[in-house]
Amino acid sequence: MPLPEPSVSKWLNADPDFALAKLRGRPVLLHAFQMLCPGCVQHALPQLQRLARLDTGCAIVGLHTVFEHHDAMTEPVLRAFLHENRITYPVGIDAAIAGQRLPTTMARLRLPGTPTLLLFDGDGDERCRHFGPIDDLALGLALGRLLPMR
Amino acid sequence: MPLPEPSVSKWLNADPDFALAKLRGRPVLLHAFQMLCPGCVQHALPQLQRLARLDTGCAIVGLHTVFEHHDAMTEPVLRAFLHENRITYPVGIDAAIAGQRLPTTMARLRLPGTPTLLLFDGDGDERCRHFGPIDDLALGLALGRLLPMR
Amino acid sequence: MPLPEPSVSKWLNADPDFALAKLRGRPVLLHAFQMLCPGCVQHALPQLQRLARLDTGCAIVGLHTVFEHHDAMTEPVLRAFLHENRITYPVGIDAAIAGQRLPTTMARLRLPGTPTLLLFDGDGDERCRHFGPIDDLALGLALGRLLPMR
Amino acid sequence: MPLPEPSVSKWLNADPDFALAKLRGRPVLLHAFQMLCPGCVQHALPQLQRLARLDTGCAIVGLHTVFEHHDAMTEPVLRAFLHENRITYPVGIDAAIAGQRLPTTMARLRLPGTPTLLLFDGDGDERCRHFGPIDDLALGLALGRLLPMR
Repeated sequence: MPLPEPSVSKWLNADPDFALAKLRGRPVLLHAFQMLCPGCVQHALPQLQRLARLDTGCAIVGLHTVFEHHDAMTEPVLRAFLHENRITYPVGIDAAIAGQRLPTTMARLRLPGTPTLLLFDGDGDERCRHFGPIDDLALGLALGRLLPMR
Repeated sequence: MPLPEPSVSKWLNADPDFALAKLRGRPVLLHAFQMLCPGCVQHALPQLQRLARLDTGCAIVGLHTVFEHHDAMTEPVLRAFLHENRITYPVGIDAAIAGQRLPTTMARLRLPGTPTLLLFDGDGDERCRHFGPIDDLALGLALGRLLPMR
Repeated sequence: MPLPEPSVSKWLNADPDFALAKLRGRPVLLHAFQMLCPGCVQHALPQLQRLARLDTGCAIVGLHTVFEHHDAMTEPVLRAFLHENRITYPVGIDAAIAGQRLPTTMARLRLPGTPTLLLFDGDGDERCRHFGPIDDLALGLALGRLLPMR
Repeated sequence: MPLPEPSVSKWLNADPDFALAKLRGRPVLLHAFQMLCPGCVQHALPQLQRLARLDTGCAIVGLHTVFEHHDAMTEPVLRAFLHENRITYPVGIDAAIAGQRLPTTMARLRLPGTPTLLLFDGDGDERCRHFGPIDDLALGLALGRLLPMR
């Protein structure tokens, strides 16, 4: 099954034609977040940065799913945010729909809010979906199941 | 000695004519921060919110000292940030100076960066200044010294 | 008011004639604990060791108040425990009473269990008593109130 | 390959004839610890108890490998320790050898100290060995690799 390709208005930290399809074969952690969401900033982002340093073979991809404070969470502010937080993995801006509160991908994948974490195995199948903070042990277990034994 | 009154372009979460002088007699914790500073958001703000819940008699006041990413950390974004983080104590916007990187109060008080925490006793004297993360035990001790025995 | 002198069968990490009275003039943190009490070992002891490193002027004194598993929590085991945990402040063994579950000082001071923390100011007056885990911020505030402003 | 069966003088929290072989088919986490080892008590044990609550299908087995303070870390003290810490998984007492500092299994498996964590997959092969504290994310990842995808 193909990875559900996010509909983004722009990719940051990646080539313009970046797509999840290019990660095929690796587990993918897709992280839906908003830069003004406290649970995202205080818990999920530092956790993903700890994870990124462990070099697991899993690809981490962010999705900025703005569904509130649309006027505040704009692309220039997001760029400054990524810079200050030293986030270097690809982050897509979920495509806004004029007059709609929810952005495209968030609505299509029925994400309940932020932070939401989705894990896909190397075949592109969704294996885990978690809304809200997840503790390190549970995240490690969920992701480890998708990695090869070594 | 009078409390050093911040030069702010606007007070949020407070009357327009708010001033530190109005807190005279109480210890004051002045917190210089930037909303895109990771150490401020991940460490200092949750810590101040734990402190606020302890009802110590100390007044907490924020000072948004933007010295980088001036175009991103604007008043509307700060308002959304305070709302999302449920910050209800007064927050002043340190007055920017055209063509200068440092805002007025930050330059005048020679604050080295963010987060910087300043503690003033009930007489308005600065008793503690700390740049960077401070752990809970050290913060409690520093602030407790300014509170009456009970 | 004099500090309530514990009735101990032996002082470890101190001269045999050690007494709280000798600390007069300094705030004293008296920590009633048991070496097999999980809350004492996992929370309170590491916290006190962080506190000890901050060099506050407060004296830390342990009191081993065995009220369960009397056959297990003996002096030789306590000595090994103090050695392994690198506890160097004075620790008194609360004097057991034959046929009684509670040791002498624990009963006299009506301590509800372990860990219990008692704070005395420099005049020997009890200023704070806390049963169970106390977080770092609250402990710092309680102790800071007993220290001189600086 | 068969699981390396510990040489124990007694199993606690298990039938007298308990053996790792009986767990065949499940991943096994073998935890070598000492009840007076601060890293074991403050870090590893609470971590294993969090893990036990997650119901992963992995079997947790403790091994009390006393190599210091032999006179203090005796069976009755260990029994009180397990009771107070509410440890309900099987714990073997690594068989002491008269005149030797290291107990039998610790020497045979060349364990470097405590805490040491060994992970075996469902076929009995050792897949991970870690001496000292391991953080939750790394432990979850290492263990997750041994669990079936779901």
